[in-house]
Amino acid sequence: MLPTITAFEASPDRGRGLARDMPVRWAFEEVGVPYDVRLVSFEAMKQPPHIALQPFGQIPTYEAGDLALFESGAIVLHIAERHPGLLPADADARSRAIAWMFSAVATVEPPIVEREQAILTERDKPWHGERLPMLGARIAKRLPALAARLGESDWLDGDFSAGDLMMVSTLRRPAAAEALNGFGNLAAYVARAEARPAFQRAFAAQRAVFEAAQRG
Amino acid sequence: MLPTITAFEASPDRGRGLARDMPVRWAFEEVGVPYDVRLVSFEAMKQPPHIALQPFGQIPTYEAGDLALFESGAIVLHIAERHPGLLPADADARSRAIAWMFSAVATVEPPIVEREQAILTERDKPWHGERLPMLGARIAKRLPALAARLGESDWLDGDFSAGDLMMVSTLRRPAAAEALNGFGNLAAYVARAEARPAFQRAFAAQRAVFEAAQRG
Repeated sequence: MLPTITAFEASPDRGRGLARDMPVRWAFEEVGVPYDVRLVSFEAMKQPPHIALQPFGQIPTYEAGDLALFESGAIVLHIAERHPGLLPADADARSRAIAWMFSAVATVEPPIVEREQAILTERDKPWHGERLPMLGARIAKRLPALAARLGESDWLDGDFSAGDLMMVSTLRRPAAAEALNGFGNLAAYVARAEARPAFQRAFAAQRAVFEAAQRG
Repeated sequence: MLPTITAFEASPDRGRGLARDMPVRWAFEEVGVPYDVRLVSFEAMKQPPHIALQPFGQIPTYEAGDLALFESGAIVLHIAERHPGLLPADADARSRAIAWMFSAVATVEPPIVEREQAILTERDKPWHGERLPMLGARIAKRLPALAARLGESDWLDGDFSAGDLMMVSTLRRPAAAEALNGFGNLAAYVARAEARPAFQRAFAAQRAVFEAAQRG
């Protein structure tokens, strides 16, 4: 029995690798562990069997044997702890990689998602035009610090790690793209990650779901 | 040499235990590990020595020997992995506790912080009155799911864990208080956590910093 994750049956991102199954697929590919995917509809995500796996009715979930997990960051960490390739062997370096995972989801990502939400839900509000640059500025506030820390390095702390995987997953969100324009080293960092064979395989796998759905 | 964390010299929360050093202090108290605190001014937080520890110029940081960490979630996890008391011994239960940590910072907290930000930075904007209930609704959207999962249990998954510590730290934020009113079991969950002797000791320690500053 392979570990099984859930993904959108019809992803709102239209196969651009922006749904939350993408970092989990990417992690599996980095460590070379095969996995199964169970596609779920928006309707099924809100029903008791899925809520038992994911209390907030979201994807992805992870099931292996008796264990069920949710939260992409937690699933990536679980995979990274059990298979070599995503966390350094040195204990201190390992804790620093995990700090970058938390930094991605708790510090860098929230203003990016806030901007996405505004574009989705407040586009028709009279204040949208004035607020949008404010939201861009909030994203941009984080990026100089991240760009300064990355500097000319390939990755945030030594070799590529689960910290980079989560940070790049955050920076790839379209709402970050405009702010990223001003930081060549961060744009190169994202491109470097996207060029990894494991990323490419994960991207192709989620893309195939969208393309199959398009064919009907 | 004790592990050393940083905290605000003059916390904007005025000693209410809402700054990010609070979950780290609480974790130390739960596992019974003594720690030192170095207070930093807003000015010092933006200077190179602090930026070397915390790239975004925030608190808390954690230093022990050659290791420096940032992100309260990552610091709490680092402490929890090294001392008994905050993570279950069973490997599956341990991964589930970590999933709740990520859930707290990545899913439950962002709309709460968004509401805080709006109150702080958009109070004088013409749209504030219309947006505030929208932001409250976004917080409230997460809470029925969390309340349903908690049910009549004391903690989210078995014994008190680092997952509860991070979730309660999120739910204690004042911007969540109004939404919490409708969920008696979540309010009781927060109160149960705040009654823990370790929470009380951590709260008193951060409160003492504020009171000493008041005395001048």
